[in-house]
Amino acid sequence: MVFLAKTSTPEEWKIVSSAISTLIEEATFEATPEGISFRAMDPSHIALIDLLWPKSAFEKYECDKPFKFSIKIDDFIKLIKRADAKDSIEITTSDEMLILRIFNNYKREFSLHLIESTYGPTPLPKLSFNVRAIVNERTFERILNDVSAISDHITIEASKDRLIFSGKSDIGSGSIILERTIQDLLELDVKEDSKATYSIEYILKIIKNTASDTVLLEYSTKMPMRLELKLSDLGGRLHFYLAPRIEER
Amino acid sequence: MVFLAKTSTPEEWKIVSSAISTLIEEATFEATPEGISFRAMDPSHIALIDLLWPKSAFEKYECDKPFKFSIKIDDFIKLIKRADAKDSIEITTSDEMLILRIFNNYKREFSLHLIESTYGPTPLPKLSFNVRAIVNERTFERILNDVSAISDHITIEASKDRLIFSGKSDIGSGSIILERTIQDLLELDVKEDSKATYSIEYILKIIKNTASDTVLLEYSTKMPMRLELKLSDLGGRLHFYLAPRIEER
Amino acid sequence: MVFLAKTSTPEEWKIVSSAISTLIEEATFEATPEGISFRAMDPSHIALIDLLWPKSAFEKYECDKPFKFSIKIDDFIKLIKRADAKDSIEITTSDEMLILRIFNNYKREFSLHLIESTYGPTPLPKLSFNVRAIVNERTFERILNDVSAISDHITIEASKDRLIFSGKSDIGSGSIILERTIQDLLELDVKEDSKATYSIEYILKIIKNTASDTVLLEYSTKMPMRLELKLSDLGGRLHFYLAPRIEER
Repeated sequence: MVFLAKTSTPEEWKIVSSAISTLIEEATFEATPEGISFRAMDPSHIALIDLLWPKSAFEKYECDKPFKFSIKIDDFIKLIKRADAKDSIEITTSDEMLILRIFNNYKREFSLHLIESTYGPTPLPKLSFNVRAIVNERTFERILNDVSAISDHITIEASKDRLIFSGKSDIGSGSIILERTIQDLLELDVKEDSKATYSIEYILKIIKNTASDTVLLEYSTKMPMRLELKLSDLGGRLHFYLAPRIEER
Repeated sequence: MVFLAKTSTPEEWKIVSSAISTLIEEATFEATPEGISFRAMDPSHIALIDLLWPKSAFEKYECDKPFKFSIKIDDFIKLIKRADAKDSIEITTSDEMLILRIFNNYKREFSLHLIESTYGPTPLPKLSFNVRAIVNERTFERILNDVSAISDHITIEASKDRLIFSGKSDIGSGSIILERTIQDLLELDVKEDSKATYSIEYILKIIKNTASDTVLLEYSTKMPMRLELKLSDLGGRLHFYLAPRIEER
Repeated sequence: MVFLAKTSTPEEWKIVSSAISTLIEEATFEATPEGISFRAMDPSHIALIDLLWPKSAFEKYECDKPFKFSIKIDDFIKLIKRADAKDSIEITTSDEMLILRIFNNYKREFSLHLIESTYGPTPLPKLSFNVRAIVNERTFERILNDVSAISDHITIEASKDRLIFSGKSDIGSGSIILERTIQDLLELDVKEDSKATYSIEYILKIIKNTASDTVLLEYSTKMPMRLELKLSDLGGRLHFYLAPRIEER
């Protein structure tokens, strides 16, 4: 079997592994001649990650037949963190091991034991989104932190001309308004006025490790949201689905 | 009722609220047509803060009649911290709420529940100071940290030509001498040789959040000290009074 | 008795004291007309520090007869840390006290109680080293951190043309190869192929405080290693000996 995936930086693997680690401890990747994919939910079934990492987004990619490999994601993170931003990365598998090679002016090689796959197929939720917005990543992260100063949850209201992010608690309340005309809101497409509430913690964990300049946010009233994060300029994307909070009041 | 206080940066509010938070948890401000003031002691009656923030020190200030408002200072700090150095800040009150607006290229608005005032008038101690010194703020902070490597308390001795800061403990002792001629000591006016000892921790907490380049320090032998910190170049000052340590040896 | 040791920066004292503090709590220095020395092992007898700090490496050095002085090293570290990189440092002793003077534009003076010496002579191990390598300090530190992502111990294998650093654990394994031709390996002199394993934690603690650009590493198969760290460009060196790990497999 041939499998080799090479990237010119460790960033994509850092984004992917830290995103996955917010959901689960053991990760099963699928490699095919077309690329690498990953899909799993967290144990409470609130969040789902769906990764699509096509062959074209790698510097070099070889895989002669589909197969799956499972790793303890925290162990992998420890190793990939050892790579600096300029180091190129090569991943292969061999004999029950994942091999990680880090190149700069000398060679570092790590082997990680593959684990038993507990993999079962995770179906994607069938969703249609009434809101589609592209927000500057740093602005989105700042908004999440703004609202988290007041509440653990963020309510997002979209109408033709604006996005309103808000939160409320015993302390008080907070709201941030992004008008359509603002530079930080690169795109806003609203089929129907929509409002839903989500856990801030989940979103922040995913957002803070991204290398994207922008985040694509999609959702509908009281339905799950989907965030799309780019892995790199070469392609590849991570979809993050998050169930809404069922409000009882 | 009309009340609106606008500053071109959040710094003044950050200094004021972090200073107050070193003393008490619930803060009652007084707003009058002339400006904002605050005065309170810590529960152990060792330290007192007296704030004078005149109308002229605001970018915009409106208040048609005197009133008081009380807030949980830690909740306010969480919110004001969300503002960057370049954001302008607007504070108003409305309907049992304090409204905090943060402006940069879009608008963020927070509401904070006002709390029941437990406010009672705090008389200022009547003091005359035999020593008046203006010290470079970073130098003063370094001296406090120097002495704290040895002791929890700092003894300040002033004579015509110098200020001596010292501390002593089981470990050993330390002393720092600022001669009158030194650049870091901008002013030294000593009516009578004076010596007193104070808690370092209290002073450091107040000092470390200031934006002032200099600190005005005033005291007399075995009497309280007073530190004056500027809020900004536009005016406004915070007086910090600290009782001396009663030494038993 | 006359004793005075002056350096133009606090760096040498910071390196020496932090290195010593990784081994023991109470340090006994020997001062002679030729300079300052120190030698001690850690309580478990795994590591030994041997310091040679000749008169010529000081800006000014005076000592009219040999004597010993003992201090609590953590207390000394607290004080020496108060000096900035540009401050010159003067150490003297007086009347059961160590006097530390820090000069920049004003004078700071600390006194530290000397303690009872628990000093006993520590003989140096008689060793001949089959491997002698000079490695870029940052590269060596990165290699130690690389292997520590996998294991608490590092195995070093030397042959004519390369140094191999590796580690192994339940997680997996890792290896870093420095070829003779690489820039980061400034010198490699191997009399006999050698292999030994050492605790990473000990080495990292010593390495991370050094100001050297390079580290001289010497060892033989299953024998202690010796690291040599320069104190400054003026002279002075710290030898760090570390016993190998006895592997039971």
